This record gives sequence, C-alpha cells and structure tokens, in this order.
Amino acid sequence: MTPSDSNIPGVPSDKPPRDTPTDSGESSEAASTPAGLSRRGLLGLLGIGASAGFIGGAATVAAVARGEAVAPTNGDQFPFYGTTQAGVTTPAQDRLFFATFDVTASATRDDLIELLQDWSYAASRLTQGLDVSERGAVGGSPLLPPDDTGDALGLPASGLTITFGVGPSLFQDANGNDRFGIADRKPAALADLPAFAFDLLSPSMTGGDLCIQACADDPQVAVHAVRNLSRIAFGRAQIRWSQLGFGRTSSTSSAQQTPRNLFGFKDGTANVMSEEKDALAKHIYVDSTSDQGWMNGGTYLVARKILMTIESWDRARLEEQENIIGRDKGEGAPLSGGSEFTEPNFEAVHSAGGPAIPVDSHVRLAHPKLNDGIRLLRRGYNYVDGNNDLGQLNAGLFFISFQNDPEHFVRIQKNLKMDTLNEYIRHVGSAVFAIPPGTSPGGYVGEGLFA
Amino acid sequence: MTPSDSNIPGVPSDKPPRDTPTDSGESSEAASTPAGLSRRGLLGLLGIGASAGFIGGAATVAAVARGEAVAPTNGDQFPFYGTTQAGVTTPAQDRLFFATFDVTASATRDDLIELLQDWSYAASRLTQGLDVSERGAVGGSPLLPPDDTGDALGLPASGLTITFGVGPSLFQDANGNDRFGIADRKPAALADLPAFAFDLLSPSMTGGDLCIQACADDPQVAVHAVRNLSRIAFGRAQIRWSQLGFGRTSSTSSAQQTPRNLFGFKDGTANVMSEEKDALAKHIYVDSTSDQGWMNGGTYLVARKILMTIESWDRARLEEQENIIGRDKGEGAPLSGGSEFTEPNFEAVHSAGGPAIPVDSHVRLAHPKLNDGIRLLRRGYNYVDGNNDLGQLNAGLFFISFQNDPEHFVRIQKNLKMDTLNEYIRHVGSAVFAIPPGTSPGGYVGEGLFA
Repeated sequence: MTPSDSNIPGVPSDKPPRDTPTDSGESSEAASTPAGLSRRGLLGLLGIGASAGFIGGAATVAAVARGEAVAPTNGDQFPFYGTTQAGVTTPAQDRLFFATFDVTASATRDDLIELLQDWSYAASRLTQGLDVSERGAVGGSPLLPPDDTGDALGLPASGLTITFGVGPSLFQDANGNDRFGIADRKPAALADLPAFAFDLLSPSMTGGDLCIQACADDPQVAVHAVRNLSRIAFGRAQIRWSQLGFGRTSSTSSAQQTPRNLFGFKDGTANVMSEEKDALAKHIYVDSTSDQGWMNGGTYLVARKILMTIESWDRARLEEQENIIGRDKGEGAPLSGGSEFTEPNFEAVHSAGGPAIPVDSHVRLAHPKLNDGIRLLRRGYNYVDGNNDLGQLNAGLFFISFQNDPEHFVRIQKNLKMDTLNEYIRHVGSAVFAIPPGTSPGGYVGEGLFA
Repeated sequence: MTPSDSNIPGVPSDKPPRDTPTDSGESSEAASTPAGLSRRGLLGLLGIGASAGFIGGAATVAAVARGEAVAPTNGDQFPFYGTTQAGVTTPAQDRLFFATFDVTASATRDDLIELLQDWSYAASRLTQGLDVSERGAVGGSPLLPPDDTGDALGLPASGLTITFGVGPSLFQDANGNDRFGIADRKPAALADLPAFAFDLLSPSMTGGDLCIQACADDPQVAVHAVRNLSRIAFGRAQIRWSQLGFGRTSSTSSAQQTPRNLFGFKDGTANVMSEEKDALAKHIYVDSTSDQGWMNGGTYLVARKILMTIESWDRARLEEQENIIGRDKGEGAPLSGGSEFTEPNFEAVHSAGGPAIPVDSHVRLAHPKLNDGIRLLRRGYNYVDGNNDLGQLNAGLFFISFQNDPEHFVRIQKNLKMDTLNEYIRHVGSAVFAIPPGTSPGGYVGEGLFA
C-alpha cells in the first residue's frame, strides 16, 4: 500500500480487519453478556465526565479478541459467571494486582449500580482474553480514544480472575450517611477491623468503598484489567490504593506446590483447598443463615499489607527462624516431626526439654486447634516496592484471606499477639470487603444489594 | 520420628539430606568457580561487620541445589561465564529486578575487589538455580544465620541472568576523590548523562557506584538474586535505588514476539537483535579501539525510569496516539504502510497532505536515519508502583539500553526533544554504567579495572 490509499489519517484502508473474532467462545459470550457498557462507562473510557454532550455511535464492529497471530501459551480461562465469584478457590495464579476504590462524592445510587454493571460486563470479557469492550483497542473510530488501552493485545487470558468486593464505607460513609440507600443491607459481619497490637497502618494503604482483586499468571494482564476497570469508573470511582504482588505465597488447590514467602519458608501449607468442599462450606462461604440474604454464596476478604524486615530476619539463626515459624525451613515439616503435610503435634516434647513446637511459634498460635477450629483460605502474594534510605527492601507479604466472617481473621490475629514473628513484621495496610456471590449472564456482581 | 530423636533443636536428625546435588552441572561447576565467598562475604551473609571476631567453619556440606522434588518448568539456564556478560543479548526474560549500589564510606580498594569477586562467585551459582553459597539456605549450622535466604528454594534457574556494572562515581566520588585508585582506568565515554529537556529526575532514583541487572522469567528468582547479592555486600555496599519491572517491552531475539508497552503499542520493533552479529559489533560492544583495554568486550548501560501519564494518554484519540508513535496500534506497522517489520518510509506522503509519518513522531525522531545511523539495544520493562493521590497509576517504562558509547543514547535523546510523546512522559530516574566484559571461572567481573 501507499499512504495515499487511506483517506483517514492513521487508518490505512487496505489492511485486513484487525478485529477478527477468534474461536475463544466470543460468539456465545456475546449473546450471553449484558448488551454492553453503559453510556457512563463508555464516557469513562473516553475520559469524559457525565455532563459531556456527545458520545460516539454504539459499537458496530465485531468483538475484538486479543488473539492476533500469537498462539496462547498461558491461556487458562476461568469463567467469570457462576454461583460464587472466581478468584477465591481458583488455583492461585502467580501474580496479583489489587486495588481499592472510593466512590466519588457526586455519584448517586444509580451511578453506583451502573458502575457495577459496567464492571461485570467488562470483567466477563477480560477474563476471556478479550478487550474491555467490543470496540476494543483498535476497533473504534480513529477520532475517538480507544476503548481498550491495548497493553494486553496479543496476550491470552492468562488465567485472569477478577473479584469484586464492597467495603463497610459503602454502606455508611465517614459522616454516617447512607449515600446509596443500602445501609439496611449491611451485613453485621462487615465492620472495620479493630486495631491490633503492633499495627502501624498507613491511611494511604487502608480501607476503600470497593475493591478489585485481579489475579493472573501474567502481571501485564492483571494490571491491564484493573487499569481498564479504573478507566470505566472515571467520574464515578477512583483508585484509593493499589498493590502489585509478584509471587503467590499460598496454594488454593492440593495440585499446586506450596510456594515460599520472603522469609524463605513454605507458606499456607494448612490452607483450605478448593477440593475441601465441606471446609469451604463451613469456613469460607456465607450460607442462607446470614443476616443478609444477598450474601448467600459470598465471602469476606481481609487484606493486610505486611512489611517484613527481611534484612533483620536474614540475620537470625536458622534455629531461631525455625522456632519462630514452628516448621523446618527446608521441607516445611512441623518441628514435631514428619513431612510438610504432617499435622503438627503440639504435645510433642523436645529432647532438650520443653515443647518441640515452641508455645510462641507462628504455626502454633495460628493453628485451628488454638482458634476454636477456625480456618481461613489464604491467597497472599509477595511484594517489593523498591527500598528505603538504608538500602533495605520495602518488601513483604500482601496477605489476603477469605472467610465467612471477618471475625475469624480477627480471632486469629489477636491470638498472634504473642507470636515471636511480630519482631520481624509490621502491618502497614489493611482493608475488609464483603465479596458478593457470583452472577449470571445479564446480571452483575452486587445486584443483591439493590434488589 | 519423634522430636526426641533430634538433639539439635529444629534440625531433626533422621531426615534425608536436604542438600542433594542435582544433575544441573553442579559437580563441574564446583570445580571451576572460585573456592567460595570471601570471609567478608560470608560475614555479610551473617549480617556481621568486618570487625566481628568469629566466623563459622568453612562450608563442609555438599553444594545445595534448589531442586528439591520440584520438576523445573521454567528451567532455562544461561551461563554466567563468557567473553561478554549475559543479560545483554540474552533473549529478554519476562521480569526484571534492577538495583544500584553505593560503596560504603569505609570500604577500601581491597574491599571493593573482594566484593566483586564474591558477587561473581555467587552469580555463577545463582544463575544455575543454586543457592548463593555451598551451605545455602538450610545446609549450615542451625546456630548461624543461613547463607541463602531460601525464598527461591524449589525454583529452577528461570533463565536468570545477572549483569554487573560500574558507574562514573566509582572512579571519582562527589568530592573528586579517587577512592579506589582506578581514576586512570575511567573510560572517556563513562560520564554522567547531561540534563535533557523535560527531565524531572528524582535524586532517589538517580546514579549509583555499581549496578546489578537481574532478569528472569520468575520475579521471585530475580528478587532473590539481588537480595542475596545485597546481603553479601553488607558493610561494603548498600542499595541506593531499585526497581521491579513486571513485563518486558523489548525483544532481543528475532525469535521473540514483540511485546507492548503501557501505551499499548509494540515497542522495540527495530531493536538490535542477538542474531545481528555485525550490528552488535558495530553498535553495542566496545572493541579494542577503546581508550581502556579492560572494556574490550564490554558495553554501556543507560537506565531511565520514565513515568507515563497513562490516564492522559488513554484519553488521546487513536489517530493522535498513532501519529505520536508513528505506527499503527494494532499491528505496529509504520504509518507509511506495510506490516510491523516494514522499514518506515519517511518520504511517504499522506493522502491528506504532509508526511505519512509525522515529522514530530517518535519513530521518526528515534530512527537511525535521523541519528547518524546509531542503533541501541533496548531491554526495557513495564513497571507499576501503586498510584498517586489522584488515583492515577505510578506506572511507566523502566528503559534500559545498551550501546558501545553512552553518547549514542544522548544523541538520540536530544533528538527526541521535539517528540510529541514528551507530553505524556516524564523522565524521573537516570543512571549510566560501564558493563565490563565477561569473565571466566576463577575470575570476576571487573577484574580488568584492577589488573
């Protein structure tokens, strides 16, 4: 071609369509999702406030798949729709991008509903490896900003899950106002976490009206998802704080290897696994006995940003490290003996006298046996945010747990007050969210709040 | 077992050895690397200053492989030893952890030499998927801190490369002192970069006496490497600034797909590739004509942390975006037509009049044709460091380029003064380093400086 073949600058006319649907299930998906983004959602993608007087024509091109000519090599897909949200029991992906949002001061109840609808629509596409809207990154008019930012073009779904949550402040703001007429829908269990011993929380990493947990095996895909959902929210909600997690520290399926945290220990060995149906029902998911029917099938997410003083830890003797954790470093076996998955024997006595698993060890104090049988489903990620002026890494654990009552986390966290691990960690960020149940095509996550 | 079987707390006696060498080449490697870490290096791992009066016995256990029972799934290995350092032409790995270091005020020339020896020894192990020392994470005495932090136990080499560099300030400090007696070895080409138009550099992300570029396909492996090299440096050098890069933005081999940056465009299409032997010799590697013989086979690294105002960019029309870049967004073809790898035709005229590739577009201003034929080997990574108070992501490009003279970067960067892309980017961090040639078993990177 020559440039003169094109009469629209920047859009040569003789190229093949870039927006060819692939066989990734797009056609059936197109029929089963909401019709598309709301006018506000589309305006958000354009970066235009609600009062703006124009919007381009409705999407007219075929849905844009991110497939291009690249063969997916990382192409796991997990369905967005279901009775529960994905991203809880889904086998923990390798990377995380997590963000909390504040609903803007001017947003109304209808704005909030429309935002949640837009988010569900977009998430149903993104989790299939599709662009955020049908027009996508390159399928719209050259005279408008692209709907999708394009940084995930050519990348497969990469196991992306998008999990939405609603925080206590959505039901009652700092001034006690019921901004969205949902105060009577607030579950009794959804309350701000109490202050804990050793808390050193930063307001800039605490709270939020809404949250998005995006997990994927490719961080570019997770960042792309949150970025585009944030764009959709323009004028209705904005990011309050966010965190990139580079390595998973928990397994959520017994088929996964137990990973290691930045203390070099296997983490989450006794996690609730997706195969444990009874434990999921008992400990993780809210059932019909909840005070709020809309939470049936939901759960609660607790996020804690935990700074680790890894340079100090690295100078602790191996023996001390193992006694603090209560497991050996190499295999992750409890100090009472056996191998990684052997149950700790807290009655076992050490040859030198005293308990084999110290009374102030992490594994003992966090164990269900010392916490009324409570179990959490942990889904944490290692993070590193550069370094401080002393050359020490700003690194640690972005702890996420799911449970059917945040009080279960509180109970265990209070029990950890005596944990010798506290010498090496600082809780610097915190938030709690209700995770509504899943939704089905045509619906949206959180719909029960407004029904 | 029962705990009473063990007479060393935390180290049960009847477990199989955790430190079984694997078939990863360890035996031949052990014979060909330096004997081990220096006393200072071992003290660094223990977090003990040089004046401390004790050190545990020399390593007596077999070398510790990180293999455990985990089958490597990501097990590419690139040799540390060679005539050039790895991490330049090595096919660009997916993730980066980059750090610059300042040599501490009390360190002597001998300390610096020993540090570089220790780093090379450790890097020769880490790049094989081994622990940082023979004792490793769990092979030492329980009464000492472990040599290795253990967070990469069970992970394969993951394509790790470790590339060392020396900055201008190593040769002459801020007070003009030749601290290490190497001022006469300073290459004329190694000078601080000049100030550029639109620079908005932060001192906390600028400069450094030394640098380590760790690239791997698993970020946990890259972070582990820098963390342990930083521990070895304890008392001799400390991290000045560091950056996690989550997604590569350049290919360095024609076998790789061209990735996308956070503007959603393919980046580095015209990069110098490892297959281009003539171009590598001409543009990237220093040869025997250098004013400093020790740099023969070396290169220069320029690092620029470039914040992208992605929220503003995302609101630019597709047409504007493409005109700024000079390529189309979908395929990455130059606006003069063709496909991604078609050479841009800067003479082509647009049907609406004027050049098809605008005169102020990035592809035109950065192109060798407008820069005396200069080409760089780019090796940049996307980054995201949370968000600002406006809910905008602190995200952008951690630009790294290699060239046989930093002046080549300067030339192009000056030419980019008119680049319309400047409206959407801010250079916030900067550094330049000489990358010495590679070394062979028994030697160390930088040895030519002290010969």
